[in-house]
Amino acid sequence: MRVSIRLKSDSRLRGNDGRFMGEFDLINTFFNRRPEQGIGDDCAVFTPTAGMQLCISSDMLVEGRHFFPDVNSEALGHKALAVNLSDLAACGATPRAFTLALALPEVNEAWLAGFSRGLFALADLHNCTLIGGDTTKGPLNICITVFGEVPAGKAMLRSGAKVGDDIYVSGTDIDHVGQARLALEILRGNIKTDSTALESVRHRLERPTPRVNLGVALRGVATSCIDISDGLLGDLGHILKASDVGASVQTDWIKGSLEFALAGGDDYELLFTAPPSQKNALQALSSKASTRVTCIGQVSRELGLRVQDEAGLPIGKSFSSFDHFSSP
Amino acid sequence: MRVSIRLKSDSRLRGNDGRFMGEFDLINTFFNRRPEQGIGDDCAVFTPTAGMQLCISSDMLVEGRHFFPDVNSEALGHKALAVNLSDLAACGATPRAFTLALALPEVNEAWLAGFSRGLFALADLHNCTLIGGDTTKGPLNICITVFGEVPAGKAMLRSGAKVGDDIYVSGTDIDHVGQARLALEILRGNIKTDSTALESVRHRLERPTPRVNLGVALRGVATSCIDISDGLLGDLGHILKASDVGASVQTDWIKGSLEFALAGGDDYELLFTAPPSQKNALQALSSKASTRVTCIGQVSRELGLRVQDEAGLPIGKSFSSFDHFSSP
Repeated sequence: MRVSIRLKSDSRLRGNDGRFMGEFDLINTFFNRRPEQGIGDDCAVFTPTAGMQLCISSDMLVEGRHFFPDVNSEALGHKALAVNLSDLAACGATPRAFTLALALPEVNEAWLAGFSRGLFALADLHNCTLIGGDTTKGPLNICITVFGEVPAGKAMLRSGAKVGDDIYVSGTDIDHVGQARLALEILRGNIKTDSTALESVRHRLERPTPRVNLGVALRGVATSCIDISDGLLGDLGHILKASDVGASVQTDWIKGSLEFALAGGDDYELLFTAPPSQKNALQALSSKASTRVTCIGQVSRELGLRVQDEAGLPIGKSFSSFDHFSSP
Repeated sequence: MRVSIRLKSDSRLRGNDGRFMGEFDLINTFFNRRPEQGIGDDCAVFTPTAGMQLCISSDMLVEGRHFFPDVNSEALGHKALAVNLSDLAACGATPRAFTLALALPEVNEAWLAGFSRGLFALADLHNCTLIGGDTTKGPLNICITVFGEVPAGKAMLRSGAKVGDDIYVSGTDIDHVGQARLALEILRGNIKTDSTALESVRHRLERPTPRVNLGVALRGVATSCIDISDGLLGDLGHILKASDVGASVQTDWIKGSLEFALAGGDDYELLFTAPPSQKNALQALSSKASTRVTCIGQVSRELGLRVQDEAGLPIGKSFSSFDHFSSP
């Protein structure tokens, strides 16, 4: 793979000591891990693998909306890439590269060191290379665009769910789905608890694990897939609409709050459908990817979404989607 | 080309009438020109052309830094894509697609209508398809990532300038270089003039023309290329450093301010080098691309950059680079 790195920077950003941090300083210090290549060209040059399609996703994270102003910057660097890798996972794509655009109110070197550490630790884990980007002065804003590859025609989509398919969610063995929202409500002060309880779920909000290996393994097995960012039922709704089917969902697997598990959001687990004939294949690939998957429902011809309690009786309550941080 | 569009949106943005504008509303109204495809999947799926490399560039524009808060939104939509297409042009890449991430303080429908009109008019001109992106609530921020293609190994880089090459700049027949800075200084109130004078240069700041056709035509003819965003001399310095050579630059072609032409910035003209043997080829391709090119200097073995006045005598003055909008 030949990659020509392209990192731009606004030369008027100030360092902690009040001096200006020039283009070269900022990039070479925090983001250019191949300084022998210099700042590079107007574009990054990327060589796609023959026969593969590119899956591309872009996410913009804004302070106060997607993260608290005082969030640990290493966790933020992790999460900014994780939410993008989670989109690749939902399509079954293997991560290849990403670009990073960053608006910073000032150059805080300790903050940047943490941010880049968290970012690159996750990038390295998935062999995902920073190939370019931009930095500028402005209200804190992080925009990452990520590139992954799938064999032509093999990307998992939302539109493939079939009547009779089972519905699965990843990571539920320890009640993962809903924990990010629980952590958020504790941090917001809406739920009073001790610090041990917060620490046991905080990483679910701040350092989600993108299910990259599971996503790649699901290619050719799952009929549709999405990652849970807005809430389980809301995201399942996208699959149902795209596939023109309905579903019933059981809730006996939920150990914590029904509301958080079904509509909490920010979970970054995979939600997918697969025919019952794939049950054994699924258990095998799930254990190979070290990620538990749990069957939580079935796809039906009857449109709409029916949620059942532990006795299989319908729950009438409606669950509204995750609203990220701000109240309207 | 199979493209699966992926546009995400924050569902808590408010429309002008105070009601919330949901994900579907915002995207379908302003950015989804193929509503029959719906919102799409977690990723856009992009099929690279066999044998081609991808050139990728990302730029982030921030209000008050890269544009005035009261700028015409149609012009802004144009410029946000233009600066990215200009990076593709500098590499000789043919535009294919782009992603758009947008943070908006509110949903102003008139503003968005203008923005998307300016954006798509330029995108259509270059067959560059919006394949995905993200919208969220936050301080106004526009991040575009653009994808172009070049035959493998043919991307123009900054590092290819050779001793004896001529140095060219595009668009100088009507003294293009420097006009964007002139418009900026008039708008800032630093230069007093009548409105006719402003209108004659304002489009150079607000609606730059990316030299896409010229860039593609220069492949295999130019030895190095860059687009002028920070100022002619500053950007030429990047070529000289990457190529390990020096240069002398003449100034007799400059009709307006020396300072603005040499260090004004935001010009988005191409600055490139080519051997004298290519002189005829250059004139032919320049007229085919309908973009004038002017020889302004020569590459030398002696390092450093020598600026000459009309009599060929050295100008000692140093020119500092463009600082975009904010004063430090």
